[in-house]
Amino acid sequence: MNACIIAVGSEMLTPFRVDTNSLVITERLNTIGYDVRLKAVVADDIDELADVVRSTLGWADVVIMTGGLGPTEDDVTRDAVARVLQIPMDVDEEIVERVRERFTRRGLSMPEINRRQAMVPRGATVLDNPNGSAPGLLIQHERTTIVLLPGPPREMKPMLDAVIRHRLAPKMTGAGLFRRVVKITGRTESDVDGQAAPIYTKWTKQPVPISTTILAVLGQVELHLTARAHSEADANTALAAAVAELQHALGSSAYSVDGRPLEAVVGDLLRERHLTIALAESCTGGLLASRLTDVPGSSAYVERGVVCYSNRSKSELLGIPESFIESHGAVSEQVAEAMARGIRDRATTNIGIGITGIAGPDGGTPSKPVGTVCIAVVLQQDVAIEPSSWVRTFPLFGGREMVKFQATQAAMNMLRLMVTGQRTM
Amino acid sequence: MNACIIAVGSEMLTPFRVDTNSLVITERLNTIGYDVRLKAVVADDIDELADVVRSTLGWADVVIMTGGLGPTEDDVTRDAVARVLQIPMDVDEEIVERVRERFTRRGLSMPEINRRQAMVPRGATVLDNPNGSAPGLLIQHERTTIVLLPGPPREMKPMLDAVIRHRLAPKMTGAGLFRRVVKITGRTESDVDGQAAPIYTKWTKQPVPISTTILAVLGQVELHLTARAHSEADANTALAAAVAELQHALGSSAYSVDGRPLEAVVGDLLRERHLTIALAESCTGGLLASRLTDVPGSSAYVERGVVCYSNRSKSELLGIPESFIESHGAVSEQVAEAMARGIRDRATTNIGIGITGIAGPDGGTPSKPVGTVCIAVVLQQDVAIEPSSWVRTFPLFGGREMVKFQATQAAMNMLRLMVTGQRTM
Repeated sequence: MNACIIAVGSEMLTPFRVDTNSLVITERLNTIGYDVRLKAVVADDIDELADVVRSTLGWADVVIMTGGLGPTEDDVTRDAVARVLQIPMDVDEEIVERVRERFTRRGLSMPEINRRQAMVPRGATVLDNPNGSAPGLLIQHERTTIVLLPGPPREMKPMLDAVIRHRLAPKMTGAGLFRRVVKITGRTESDVDGQAAPIYTKWTKQPVPISTTILAVLGQVELHLTARAHSEADANTALAAAVAELQHALGSSAYSVDGRPLEAVVGDLLRERHLTIALAESCTGGLLASRLTDVPGSSAYVERGVVCYSNRSKSELLGIPESFIESHGAVSEQVAEAMARGIRDRATTNIGIGITGIAGPDGGTPSKPVGTVCIAVVLQQDVAIEPSSWVRTFPLFGGREMVKFQATQAAMNMLRLMVTGQRTM
Repeated sequence: MNACIIAVGSEMLTPFRVDTNSLVITERLNTIGYDVRLKAVVADDIDELADVVRSTLGWADVVIMTGGLGPTEDDVTRDAVARVLQIPMDVDEEIVERVRERFTRRGLSMPEINRRQAMVPRGATVLDNPNGSAPGLLIQHERTTIVLLPGPPREMKPMLDAVIRHRLAPKMTGAGLFRRVVKITGRTESDVDGQAAPIYTKWTKQPVPISTTILAVLGQVELHLTARAHSEADANTALAAAVAELQHALGSSAYSVDGRPLEAVVGDLLRERHLTIALAESCTGGLLASRLTDVPGSSAYVERGVVCYSNRSKSELLGIPESFIESHGAVSEQVAEAMARGIRDRATTNIGIGITGIAGPDGGTPSKPVGTVCIAVVLQQDVAIEPSSWVRTFPLFGGREMVKFQATQAAMNMLRLMVTGQRTM
């Protein structure tokens, strides 16, 4: 079954806005078995919009349109659809009353222009909008179901869910596309793909076929698995087997198979093991602390962090003699390890992390170019994990923010591997 | 002049990827006077792609297509265009040689399949691709210029620039759309719009008309001004006057008219005034330090930061007695101010900032709900700015990451207003 998504609104044809509603809509449609074959963004122009709608009628089983349902002259979605289908529009007095009540509740009187929002193409089903004044509409025309939803995501999403559940899903067989994401860090895209491709290419021919897309994101690689199955249960069985096979092949580099970001994976490991942590950051400037504390409940294991940009602060906050920093260089494995030990001892946590590096764009040297980052993770002696410290130097690439992010990713991954006893080098 | 942008690729019809090439293309086309009237994302399917291309020929002066120029069977953009225009394709042996050389340089031999990349619709202009193997193509068909570019942004962008400059701009009159962004913080969208709308609505009727879009982003409001002018000079004059009028009306809440983010604006203020700063963060967890240090050269003014999640760390790192925290509550203006003074005195910087609050989702109380954040900015006595301290409590909304971000935005804005002597309350 073929679907088309049309976003209506001239503001989405500027360089400032991108249509993201269609991602949610695609995900929901896929789950009940629709393939999205075309996405379009169209201006607030009745002729142009009518042309696009007309061009979908020959092939689309469902057309989801978002936006253009407001009360102004610019809002032409209703009119464009009515024109294409050659059906008249009537004012629905019940909708007028509901809109009027919304205004009254806020102590306002309804402007007459809002009557436009109550125009309904004859024969259309009105869809309730719990979060706004514009109702949605559903119109069946021959093979095609046309659904009109408002543009603001807060209004659109609950209405979409209701349409999917009550109007579109019952027409389908329960078959659909079902997904999993495997997240990997510490390896390049081509390295991951070289190992994963011989596995996932086999899956396209099996009874529940799974297609796989590899996506390199900053500091990690994602494998997106999409199963086409007759039921969610069939899909789950096939996907579980596929994920297990990938995990077996990729080993410890696959850190998440359930959507959790690395900071949540690490947080869960610390919480389960009752471990506390403290952070000493130089080049990452607090980003590691910030990412770890993005996780709700992180105050249970993050005791403190310090951002030591100056050598003086490294001495005062971590007890590292300035002479030590001068003799090894501020960006060195020795200083990274001293930072980790310093913060661990002062915070009396189980774990300390030290990060020092050159985020750029200035400060690089031939022997330590921009992107050189030294990271140390040290455990307290009474944590029963051996060895109890690990220091690595990473050559990271890209601009300042990219280096910072990759460094936090590398630090959390070192921590994860140490805590789970999977440290390999 | 009307433009259409078509992104080709089934992966962009999944929930995982959004077409962002079209934003850059729109910006460039606008600058030379093209209006983008339609954007489409189409699967790797020759019939479907041909249908979309065919539907643009009646109205589009330029059609920019990205993606589908690779060597595999899935790459059908060339074939679809040739089919619609009913022109045969020839293998361009010069392109074959260039692709073969690329492989040879990397010590590889060219797979025969790559000959597909050398297929050229008869009469098309070949566009050099300095960063990849797929050349671009430009085909003139009656009123419509069809441009085929590769999908990867790194390859697409330089080719787009060349096409705009050498092929498309010379056809135009120099007229186009030119833009400015005014960024505002510390006010709601409706508040800003109430003040700005009476001003910007006048501009649509002036000789160089300017249209304005208001965009609420987390922690800030942006006014996007678009001038339609016969030359860049005319646009610059009109936009400068418009920006000045908005700045006059909006006063100190407009913090940027040149695209700089708040952390860069604040950084420039500190650098110009030779002021140093230190940060004590609780609920923001290092995010303020991280944002300030995203700015290259920030080590000149950021001396240090501490993340004090525990009461113990507030005592040890900032010298705040635990009894003081207990009597006022960890989230209180008193503790925020003590944090700011503590870090300022220990770092001996000119400025200290303290932030304490409830980021959620847990920890709220009826009197201090989730989102309550206390922020203090304190200056050293010898900084000639009066008054020398400012403490405020903000009721922020949204999830944990939203509260954190808004709190850092509010802190930087307080700092900006104090340092520039514009503190108003």
